[in-house]
Amino acid sequence: MTDVAASAASPAAAPVGADAAPRRIAVLAGGVGGARFALGLREAAPDADVAIVANVGDDVWLAGVKVCPDLDSLLYALAGVGDTERGWGRAGESERVAAELTAYGVGWPWFTLGDLDLGTHLARTAMLRDGATLTEATARLSARWPLGARLLPVTDDEVPTHVVTDEGVLHFEEWWVRTRAQLPAHRFVQHGVERARITAEARAAIADADVVLVAPSNPVVSIGTILGVPGVRDALATTAAPVVGVSPIIGGRAVRGMAAACLAAIDVAPDALAVGLHHGARSAGGVLDGWLVADEDADAVPALEAAGIRAAAAPLWLTPGGPAAQVARDALALAARIR
Amino acid sequence: MTDVAASAASPAAAPVGADAAPRRIAVLAGGVGGARFALGLREAAPDADVAIVANVGDDVWLAGVKVCPDLDSLLYALAGVGDTERGWGRAGESERVAAELTAYGVGWPWFTLGDLDLGTHLARTAMLRDGATLTEATARLSARWPLGARLLPVTDDEVPTHVVTDEGVLHFEEWWVRTRAQLPAHRFVQHGVERARITAEARAAIADADVVLVAPSNPVVSIGTILGVPGVRDALATTAAPVVGVSPIIGGRAVRGMAAACLAAIDVAPDALAVGLHHGARSAGGVLDGWLVADEDADAVPALEAAGIRAAAAPLWLTPGGPAAQVARDALALAARIR
Repeated sequence: MTDVAASAASPAAAPVGADAAPRRIAVLAGGVGGARFALGLREAAPDADVAIVANVGDDVWLAGVKVCPDLDSLLYALAGVGDTERGWGRAGESERVAAELTAYGVGWPWFTLGDLDLGTHLARTAMLRDGATLTEATARLSARWPLGARLLPVTDDEVPTHVVTDEGVLHFEEWWVRTRAQLPAHRFVQHGVERARITAEARAAIADADVVLVAPSNPVVSIGTILGVPGVRDALATTAAPVVGVSPIIGGRAVRGMAAACLAAIDVAPDALAVGLHHGARSAGGVLDGWLVADEDADAVPALEAAGIRAAAAPLWLTPGGPAAQVARDALALAARIR
Repeated sequence: MTDVAASAASPAAAPVGADAAPRRIAVLAGGVGGARFALGLREAAPDADVAIVANVGDDVWLAGVKVCPDLDSLLYALAGVGDTERGWGRAGESERVAAELTAYGVGWPWFTLGDLDLGTHLARTAMLRDGATLTEATARLSARWPLGARLLPVTDDEVPTHVVTDEGVLHFEEWWVRTRAQLPAHRFVQHGVERARITAEARAAIADADVVLVAPSNPVVSIGTILGVPGVRDALATTAAPVVGVSPIIGGRAVRGMAAACLAAIDVAPDALAVGLHHGARSAGGVLDGWLVADEDADAVPALEAAGIRAAAAPLWLTPGGPAAQVARDALALAARIR
């Protein structure tokens, strides 16, 4: 980590790395970016109890089965069964069932439903229909592999993200996958969010954590939708742990996905500074104590610090098999300066 | 057809084959035996409008998807995509999804859920969850292929057959597939039947038919459960068409499936005469005008006729690719003698 922030260090800053390694880490995460970060974190803090509080805004019922794209991306990545080339879904996938659905005129030509992936959806759906909560179903699915982390949906309630466009209101997955986020989004709506609640498990994971990390996931439709669930901001405001985020924007470009299109809808510039300020300093009613930006964005550090967000710059490219562990170490080091 | 019944012909008997071929034929049918008979009937009466009123007592929800074994056996057979060697399911089947379910600890080791078959279940389930009736969903699934027959579930209501055994009450499919009907059945219960109704489509098919045929399906858990649906016996009693059944028992042996175990539970001997008398003469409050038995059972004909059921003997082995068309012709010929 390039300690750009040292020049602006506040008197309360602890020496980097001086603290004991955190025992309990909570991570707010979306799918693909969250999964890569989680893999790095597992490597960086192998002895920690890691709880991943995952976005469920992308969840969708397709043909009567519940699909949870972000939970599945996290599950498959941590289980080592994900398709690392494609970046999503299972390795060695086939689509025999989906071809049948298409032949019957059912299904979504724009949505790839792999057979192995469908096994996960069907197993989850069976559990839900038997009365399990999504948290319980996720724990049972997770028990198949030694994941090295607990997967916790942020809420057991259904909070599908809807996208308001000129062509009407679409489910997030249709907008994201079918239109490749090319159809301008005017607004994102968390359908039913007023009746949703953070789960007791997710709240406890945040409350009991030594460090809370915000993965470099989409700041609007992953992190933003997690933060939108009633109880999450309160949990973050009251935890004793420092809250440190990793910027998903590097040099003005969204690293993964189509974050720029999402940020445009909420009038936030697609750069590391603007996103950090959008999340805001915890001391000023926001959610961040710290914000790790890319080396390319080191010049954002002073403005972030001025806004009350401890900041540092580091290499942030999370390529598969790449230096994700170092990104996690740098995020933990920044947190250690805040604790 | 060996016209064994000629010696006992009633004065009302019409000459065999003298009538015009029936334009509209309704068939009461279960799965595998029903499917083979339906294939023969399609060949025997290629110009007829054939409506197959199918058993739904075996239907089961597995992992949140609706499985309709008898409708699917009929669909696949008529579509020419069934596995004729195995006798059920799709040809060229695989079980990738089922293996995933098992790995997650979900599913039924005793129930084979093929990938292609699952496509049908999922498509159907999606339609049902969108508000379609089972009749509508079946029509939409059927539209994929030129079946040459309409598939009509006898009811749109859920009437699962439960089996009372010493080990408790099992769903029919669990008893049938897992225990291979080896666990003695004390009783069959049509769960929810008091609230069920024959569909308007099935009732009209029976009312408007020129001939009603009862396929050589299991007389208890296929034909019996169809007859148990409120409205079916009334439709059969009031139709102007003759009702002719084909015995599923040949020489004291159930041709397919495990009919003997089912007949034992209702105290009916596993022979063609006893099953015919169990269904009973329509003129005496039963359902049959005619009953086609196997050549091996020709000696049952006089007793059937004495009971008011016109009877004849013919070769009845419905081997795949075998003389099913001739069985259908013989059943139609017997019906022609009654009309």
